[in-house]
Amino acid sequence: MLQFFTLDLLPAKNGEEPTMQFLLEVVDILTNYVRKTFDRSTKVLDFHHPHQLLEGMEGFNLELSDQPESLEQILVDCRDTLKYGVRTGHPRFFNQLSTGLDIIGLAGEWLTSTANTNMFTYEIAPVFVLMEQLTLKKMREIIGWPDGEGDGIFSPGGAISNMYSVMTARYKFFPEVKTKGMTAAPRLVLFTSEHSHYSIKKASAALGFGTENLILLSTDERTHIHSDGLCLQGCVPMFVNATAGSTVYGAFDPIHEIADICEKYNMWLHVDGAWGGGLLMSRKHRHKLRGVERANSVTWNPHKMMGVPLQCSAILVRERGVLSGCNSMCAGYLFQPDKQYDVSYDTGDKAIQCGRHVDIFKFWLMWKAKGTIGFEHHIDKCLDLSHYLYTKIRDREGYQMVFEGEPQHTNVCFWYLPPGIRDMPDGQERRDRLHKVAPKIKALMMESGTTMVGYQPQGDKVNFFRMVISNPAATRSDIDFLTDEIERLGHDL
Amino acid sequence: MLQFFTLDLLPAKNGEEPTMQFLLEVVDILTNYVRKTFDRSTKVLDFHHPHQLLEGMEGFNLELSDQPESLEQILVDCRDTLKYGVRTGHPRFFNQLSTGLDIIGLAGEWLTSTANTNMFTYEIAPVFVLMEQLTLKKMREIIGWPDGEGDGIFSPGGAISNMYSVMTARYKFFPEVKTKGMTAAPRLVLFTSEHSHYSIKKASAALGFGTENLILLSTDERTHIHSDGLCLQGCVPMFVNATAGSTVYGAFDPIHEIADICEKYNMWLHVDGAWGGGLLMSRKHRHKLRGVERANSVTWNPHKMMGVPLQCSAILVRERGVLSGCNSMCAGYLFQPDKQYDVSYDTGDKAIQCGRHVDIFKFWLMWKAKGTIGFEHHIDKCLDLSHYLYTKIRDREGYQMVFEGEPQHTNVCFWYLPPGIRDMPDGQERRDRLHKVAPKIKALMMESGTTMVGYQPQGDKVNFFRMVISNPAATRSDIDFLTDEIERLGHDL
Repeated sequence: MLQFFTLDLLPAKNGEEPTMQFLLEVVDILTNYVRKTFDRSTKVLDFHHPHQLLEGMEGFNLELSDQPESLEQILVDCRDTLKYGVRTGHPRFFNQLSTGLDIIGLAGEWLTSTANTNMFTYEIAPVFVLMEQLTLKKMREIIGWPDGEGDGIFSPGGAISNMYSVMTARYKFFPEVKTKGMTAAPRLVLFTSEHSHYSIKKASAALGFGTENLILLSTDERTHIHSDGLCLQGCVPMFVNATAGSTVYGAFDPIHEIADICEKYNMWLHVDGAWGGGLLMSRKHRHKLRGVERANSVTWNPHKMMGVPLQCSAILVRERGVLSGCNSMCAGYLFQPDKQYDVSYDTGDKAIQCGRHVDIFKFWLMWKAKGTIGFEHHIDKCLDLSHYLYTKIRDREGYQMVFEGEPQHTNVCFWYLPPGIRDMPDGQERRDRLHKVAPKIKALMMESGTTMVGYQPQGDKVNFFRMVISNPAATRSDIDFLTDEIERLGHDL
Repeated sequence: MLQFFTLDLLPAKNGEEPTMQFLLEVVDILTNYVRKTFDRSTKVLDFHHPHQLLEGMEGFNLELSDQPESLEQILVDCRDTLKYGVRTGHPRFFNQLSTGLDIIGLAGEWLTSTANTNMFTYEIAPVFVLMEQLTLKKMREIIGWPDGEGDGIFSPGGAISNMYSVMTARYKFFPEVKTKGMTAAPRLVLFTSEHSHYSIKKASAALGFGTENLILLSTDERTHIHSDGLCLQGCVPMFVNATAGSTVYGAFDPIHEIADICEKYNMWLHVDGAWGGGLLMSRKHRHKLRGVERANSVTWNPHKMMGVPLQCSAILVRERGVLSGCNSMCAGYLFQPDKQYDVSYDTGDKAIQCGRHVDIFKFWLMWKAKGTIGFEHHIDKCLDLSHYLYTKIRDREGYQMVFEGEPQHTNVCFWYLPPGIRDMPDGQERRDRLHKVAPKIKALMMESGTTMVGYQPQGDKVNFFRMVISNPAATRSDIDFLTDEIERLGHDL
């Protein structure tokens, strides 16, 4: 490829051969990366500080220039981009709620990029629009809405899905806000638990409610909403977010209890199942979302617990018509009523986006390849693994659990106490030292590149590790590796 | 692959061989599709009605089931998905603002899917985060902001980018709205031209301004904002959107004139260059955005005029700090202050999203491969082609232009008048008949699958064709083909 440039590729005359050669060389780089991702003898990452990468590593220069680079250099750039990145599919990558590299999902995403189309109309995405429709219906059936009736859309992530829920609720109760703005409504109050995802707060700021009108309800140690707290608030209560699988603890709010209150006060019930929604696929674990069928809307991110490549998030709405009522603007240049096909399939006007990436295909293809039963196995296996970790460290010397009792999701939250801290008396000094342990171990972990797990403080709790498992490649030996590594790196702190 | 299922692939034991075999078979399907996309003897699409695809085509069943399907069937599903889709990269696809299939961009997107990571932190996307930072700076330099200073982020599309601009403006002037909601501010009014993109209207509804507080300014025939209209409105004017390349006509609002008014009344000036921003790359055409450096924020979608695969949209903000001030919520589990690296590179809290797809890599890679100069050539070529179309049909029998004068962008808007209409006297009957011509030709076009171009009514103008060119594969012969095809299909209407 040394002598070629992008202008030699298709649509150039005689561009077919170099194009095929180039794409196959790229695929060779990618398949090598895939191979290594699953190989435990490779590192999860090869850490460099921002200034190191910015200064440029041998042959890898991030700066853009006026003149074209050769395809040979482009291939080097591809290799280096992967080299200095993080293998999120590695069996020992536990850092995020989205982990793993599903091969079918990957193939689906490659196809999606090749088709390079847009979800706004049936006209230019006929197959994908229908796949989205069928898949959303299936998800609504699994939620438990009669005949899978309702509405929904795939959005660019859980935060946007949650934003849709607040917008849709507002439109349902105060449709005049769409035309007249928030001043047309009384002071509206939203509720969520203090451990819910910060996107609810982002939505309350963005949509004009104001974060002070989002009431954070206190939770018990396991971070369920104390549902009696809801009734104590004044103002005009409009919306409650119940979290199904909180980000840090993996806790599930009691949906039935919250639904009772929502019914009593005529509030919209949203269930944020971005992380926990996947458990609906498991006969063993779906009881944790008991009552979800009473929700008015549900966020469910297949790109988290179901292992679908990023991005893949759905907002599902029980009542038909509210979503499009809320968002439609009837742009004439896209949604012509006089098309030759049934234009009810032009679903783009329901979205707050105009162009919309095709997020459905990889998910649909994975569902085809795994079957519903395959997702169930995957979820049960991840929960089994987290149970293994929990029982392993629960009573182990040097570990302390952050919350009492068995985790409900795969989140296992714990402190590791180096020997030097174990016998210190409780107090500020011990807390200060413990607070520094997790960041220090994490830094060493990243520098050695062997594994990755997240940490954070929460409320009055100093920094602790949050282990999450959604990667189908992880096994008990990887869990053992993680604890060994924490002990190895943290022993002398 | 007949005997294999997804469970036989990696991370399965001995999964490497079937994984590689499967991925290569997928790549074979995709490269064949790429080859055909550029082959003018293939159709742009093989049209089927929704009910036909839903009923199932031979061997292609969209329904999801409980049990897994074999990889052999998965490969068939991939082939069929492409077969019944639309080739948006075909040289004769002119239907949307985003067309073309750039091979480097495609390779970039394949790599992005393989890396499968998330933009919220440097921790898990070190290379991509830096690429985004450098590319945004480059874009700000091209806009003309001193030293490329300012801020910005890639968002899931132009509508969301425009939404960011309104949110950011509101935060700049009324930061208390973030915490107290819209009731803390006076009645705020937004301005845009009547031909601007409908996403400004969507944003005004979603963010709690209300669509009635968005004033649509009248435009002249070429749809420039009459800038004196701005001063006539009451209330508290806060934000003006100037369109740089309107969706239908491709018109550019006079930014300098609008900027003068914004300065006078202390309003935020946003330039929606989703479609026209690409012209900044061309020394010949960038004058159409004269004054853009005076904007407070700019939307610019590389996935439109610059041919980057979907999705790739940037919102650029002149003043540092407003974007993060507006959106940050400081989630402890992601944005720990005690990381080992410089956490100013954790840019996720600026976004209204939490997880964010990696949209930068394909764009960065294309810029490397083409150079700034390559984008310039591409844009100049597309504008030359639209000039060719314009001069060809301007005085041709059977054509009538929708607006006077040379188009500013690649949008060429015209009516085709079948012979039976040409001599009809002006009046309702003629209008009614003409209104039906474009939809009818479009339907025939889609059924024959030979080419695709958009149409719409606008204001009191009946349905007309909007031709747009952003596809690097299109040539004069394709333009000739389009007009021949319109005449062939429309002659007897």
